[in-house]
Amino acid sequence: MDLTVNFVRSGAKLVRLGGVLAQSSIIKRGHGRVWKIINQYSCSTSLSTLSYPETVKNINEDKKSLYTTRTHTCGELTSKDAGSKVCLKGWIQYNRKKFLVLRDAYGMTQVLLEEVGGDMQKILDGLTLESVIEVKGEVILRPKDQVNNKMISGDIEIKALSIRVLGAAPSQMPLQIKENKMPTEDTRMKYRYLYLRYPHMQKMLRLRSQLFHSMREFLIQHHFVDVETPTLFRKTPGGAQEFVVPTQIPDHFYSLVQSPQQFKQLLMVGGLDRYFQIARCYRDETVRHDRQPEFTQLDIELSFVDRKSIIKLIEELLNFCWPSEEERPDIPFPQMTYHDAMLNYGSDKPDLRFQSKICDVTHLISPQKMGSNPLNVSSELSARAIVFSKAASICKKENLKEIIKEATKNTSSINLFLIPIKKNQDIKNSLKNVLTVEEIDKIANELKVEEGDLFGFCFGKNQDVLKVLGLTRVLTADALEANGFTVREPNNCFLWVVDFPLFEENDDGSLLSAHHPFTQPHPDDLQLLGTEPLKVRGLHYDLVLNGSEIGGGSIRISDAHLQKYILHDLLHLDTSTLQHLIDALSLGCPPHGGIALGLDRLVSMMTGVKSIREVIAFPKGLRGKDPMAGAPAPLTREDAATYKLPFNHGKSS
Amino acid sequence: MDLTVNFVRSGAKLVRLGGVLAQSSIIKRGHGRVWKIINQYSCSTSLSTLSYPETVKNINEDKKSLYTTRTHTCGELTSKDAGSKVCLKGWIQYNRKKFLVLRDAYGMTQVLLEEVGGDMQKILDGLTLESVIEVKGEVILRPKDQVNNKMISGDIEIKALSIRVLGAAPSQMPLQIKENKMPTEDTRMKYRYLYLRYPHMQKMLRLRSQLFHSMREFLIQHHFVDVETPTLFRKTPGGAQEFVVPTQIPDHFYSLVQSPQQFKQLLMVGGLDRYFQIARCYRDETVRHDRQPEFTQLDIELSFVDRKSIIKLIEELLNFCWPSEEERPDIPFPQMTYHDAMLNYGSDKPDLRFQSKICDVTHLISPQKMGSNPLNVSSELSARAIVFSKAASICKKENLKEIIKEATKNTSSINLFLIPIKKNQDIKNSLKNVLTVEEIDKIANELKVEEGDLFGFCFGKNQDVLKVLGLTRVLTADALEANGFTVREPNNCFLWVVDFPLFEENDDGSLLSAHHPFTQPHPDDLQLLGTEPLKVRGLHYDLVLNGSEIGGGSIRISDAHLQKYILHDLLHLDTSTLQHLIDALSLGCPPHGGIALGLDRLVSMMTGVKSIREVIAFPKGLRGKDPMAGAPAPLTREDAATYKLPFNHGKSS
Repeated sequence: MDLTVNFVRSGAKLVRLGGVLAQSSIIKRGHGRVWKIINQYSCSTSLSTLSYPETVKNINEDKKSLYTTRTHTCGELTSKDAGSKVCLKGWIQYNRKKFLVLRDAYGMTQVLLEEVGGDMQKILDGLTLESVIEVKGEVILRPKDQVNNKMISGDIEIKALSIRVLGAAPSQMPLQIKENKMPTEDTRMKYRYLYLRYPHMQKMLRLRSQLFHSMREFLIQHHFVDVETPTLFRKTPGGAQEFVVPTQIPDHFYSLVQSPQQFKQLLMVGGLDRYFQIARCYRDETVRHDRQPEFTQLDIELSFVDRKSIIKLIEELLNFCWPSEEERPDIPFPQMTYHDAMLNYGSDKPDLRFQSKICDVTHLISPQKMGSNPLNVSSELSARAIVFSKAASICKKENLKEIIKEATKNTSSINLFLIPIKKNQDIKNSLKNVLTVEEIDKIANELKVEEGDLFGFCFGKNQDVLKVLGLTRVLTADALEANGFTVREPNNCFLWVVDFPLFEENDDGSLLSAHHPFTQPHPDDLQLLGTEPLKVRGLHYDLVLNGSEIGGGSIRISDAHLQKYILHDLLHLDTSTLQHLIDALSLGCPPHGGIALGLDRLVSMMTGVKSIREVIAFPKGLRGKDPMAGAPAPLTREDAATYKLPFNHGKSS
Repeated sequence: MDLTVNFVRSGAKLVRLGGVLAQSSIIKRGHGRVWKIINQYSCSTSLSTLSYPETVKNINEDKKSLYTTRTHTCGELTSKDAGSKVCLKGWIQYNRKKFLVLRDAYGMTQVLLEEVGGDMQKILDGLTLESVIEVKGEVILRPKDQVNNKMISGDIEIKALSIRVLGAAPSQMPLQIKENKMPTEDTRMKYRYLYLRYPHMQKMLRLRSQLFHSMREFLIQHHFVDVETPTLFRKTPGGAQEFVVPTQIPDHFYSLVQSPQQFKQLLMVGGLDRYFQIARCYRDETVRHDRQPEFTQLDIELSFVDRKSIIKLIEELLNFCWPSEEERPDIPFPQMTYHDAMLNYGSDKPDLRFQSKICDVTHLISPQKMGSNPLNVSSELSARAIVFSKAASICKKENLKEIIKEATKNTSSINLFLIPIKKNQDIKNSLKNVLTVEEIDKIANELKVEEGDLFGFCFGKNQDVLKVLGLTRVLTADALEANGFTVREPNNCFLWVVDFPLFEENDDGSLLSAHHPFTQPHPDDLQLLGTEPLKVRGLHYDLVLNGSEIGGGSIRISDAHLQKYILHDLLHLDTSTLQHLIDALSLGCPPHGGIALGLDRLVSMMTGVKSIREVIAFPKGLRGKDPMAGAPAPLTREDAATYKLPFNHGKSS
């Protein structure tokens, strides 16, 4: 269970093991005691409000129980509290004869049900797991042989004086809250509120909250101003698909912002020179895997700034707020140009947790060799190879076939070879139809290919070769790890990728912003804008963590003429919807730049879970659907009328 | 100017006066110096990125200039820095011959342009106000007779060694940034990014940011967990008008949440026992005055809690985060039942900054007196009066007429008398047609009405009388103050209003939740639910500040059966869209409750501005329109097709 394993490392172990050990000690313990219940079990008690228990003093010091009607959490009492009268409230985790284990967000505490007998026993026996109860009682020391040192409350138990049911649960629950019983994704989504009871989800939500607070603390300390910007706005041309929101003004719609980009630039024009926001953003991209229609980013913008200052800011910020001391990333992070990233890793977000660089072997192959062969080496064509050391015997043939299929699915003209070299001869046998023995020897020699390695080789159009080998690199690492072979070091490998091209080319030859149209061109390339725009680099930077892009930003265009030129003359976008921004740039705009970090992804990488759905309290599922509440849903007749929308589902209103 | 006056109190005075005084000292100062400009003025310099100035060491200690290319802000250099080489960047506030005043978010600094002459002088003369420039130079002491002690940087100036234009402004700006020239609301909205340059707006945004951070700090210290909940959800029955959001699933729409109410309750079911969020909420109520389609609330929920614990939490939170020491509100805040608030103030959010209670005088009037008079005193009818001490001569007749018209506009059957008692006889003359002299004497006697008072009187249906006099009370106070008569003490008057009715009655006799259908009925009134639901009080509490509701909350229903009974049997709402919540309550739900504070309103009251548009960086104007960017806007053809929406405005795409 991926989730559990991860949280064991980050501290959940105590709680989880505590539960299990508490359970086993329950089974061993006493018999024949007398039971006494003061408040009889009754479902209706959950209707009445609770009053602060007057008889027990709130001796809690760590504030977790301030402003509540409990005196302590289930994760704090120890032998120091022996003799105290306490009031705990929580969920029944285990119910074994004369013992209960009570769970709350902070831990588990064992409750001893003494001095009770007769009919009361039956009521206690009827207590269902996951019911919420109140236990008033006295802290007593456990017998020495039953002390559990791995549990915070392992040296005490509560001798119950009264028990009251606050919220009963049925005997059949849709899912059981046991760390070793992970429900399916469907169940986790439908009964999200139950899934949140799992200790690892409790931990995750707290870690996320604490992380965000640390980020804010760092930024506030450095005089950044937290400004909330609108989410109801108008469409920004040339970006992601934005949700639209009908209004009561006929035929007029808001768009939900895909980021606060325009607002943060306007704030700079407004003289607010250090802005940040943990911002909710919206993109209607739910058809793509693991995308959420709404997501959270740390959004930052500064005036009077350059690229290296922003890079330093983010490094120091992440260093400051990193939740675990031993995994705190070293700063500064390495930097790599887009050009080098593509050339060596076939990706603009290389995963540096493992080596296996892509190597150019074009020069080792005879250019005149074959006329019909696409390997007509020119600047547009290349041959490249990659070596996975000692990995020949790890993957099955089917794995390799799958990798080849997946890596070349969008570039079918490319021949990808992925050869496990179990014997020296294997490489020659596999490549004999495309290369001469001499060529193969030269390549094997230069790349120091050895028996036992896994060898990848590919030739063709340079861009395609790099893309295919970049994919091959990651897919092979995944496959090797799925087969138990360690490829990646578990460290947090941060990397800045810089000097991206400012533009990409559409299929029809028109230009497209590589990131967004507000990115400042590199000053050294300005003279190429009118002539060779595809060669212009932008002052954009991406932050990559373990092969995922977790953030990106740029120095912005702060000159109205240049902004208009790029939008209108180069990108051929309608500037009328951006006139306010162009106006703003012309009215005394400071040089400025910023960045946005995707926080859902960052948290998922910090906690080692694969899906961002595991780090969001109430995520949407496939196609943006919420299986819990049934959102999105058909309109009501009234809403259809209010917003002049077609009404096709009368039955649902 | 309301805005300015307020900010003078909270610290902007220094900056504002600083500016003015700096200006006057500029005019007095030297002539005939030699000018020298190193970097020639050129608009194109704003295209190139700035690099960190290598020649000047960053000696800034307060972090405002860390990660930037400036060394200091315009609000920090003093005589201690004399001799330092500095690099400042900011907006030109004044440009007088051989001096500039440079402004940034932190203050103003005077720049001395020495050793320059010839053609350069012309360029300097051409510098426009509100242009962004870089000044590198040396801090020098001002001559002793020109030291300005009211300005942070008043004892120094910068001897400019180089000046560079980073972002030019035109000579004609849409608005001038001068505190004594407040633009119209229209201009403030259209050129919001320029309006934000005003020092009072800079202060406000910083205060808001700091306030929110203090709130978070308090809550995190007390182990509350900051959880982001979805804004794309499905309609909650029985609330405000919610925006709908079309999706790419045919005929399916999200609703934008009007509050995180359901999610915070589900978090409690999920065992996350202390939740908060500074949450974006949405209501399509822009037809109402001073409402924003999106707004911000501090949202809090706790498990195992009672009303008085939540009240205590909010009191201590507000006390902790209050931005000014001298105005910090005393805690605990007073409490008042809904019943008493209505009876004494004719309002469920009484403004306690002034007295003038509403007094019942029904018992002083003969019940049998007049058959045709509506004053047939029964439990349903009453006569009530209100006295504004010494206020007889303040308002004009027209003012009083307006108050009467406004206060009775929804209750035309009511006769309201508002009598300035300039002479003792006035009250008798005015009321002689409805009361006997004896009755008038008794009333005047009991209420200690004196010559010089303003006296209000009203009779009729009890509810109407209270509503009319409640309105009269506030409108009269407004009118008196508009005429320069101090009525309200400037203190922050907090008040809890409790014991609201759980239900209100629709015109057709059906029930309506007074707040929302998740409010727990008062335990003492539970037995009345089935028989006299209008008599049932809810465990709801409102927080009132100076006559405005700034927050409200309740203990929630945590029993599935009761929740279903209220939704289905009493309110006759369709429970199918809330089935997930009802399910959740049945699966082990803790008793819980919470509150939400309206932060836009709170900040506006803290800063003493009347409209919440003044405390939001980018507010919407009338009908939810954004005059700056033109949102909402017609759909594009592509969006209409994507979301299967009617397309009527092809020209806009």
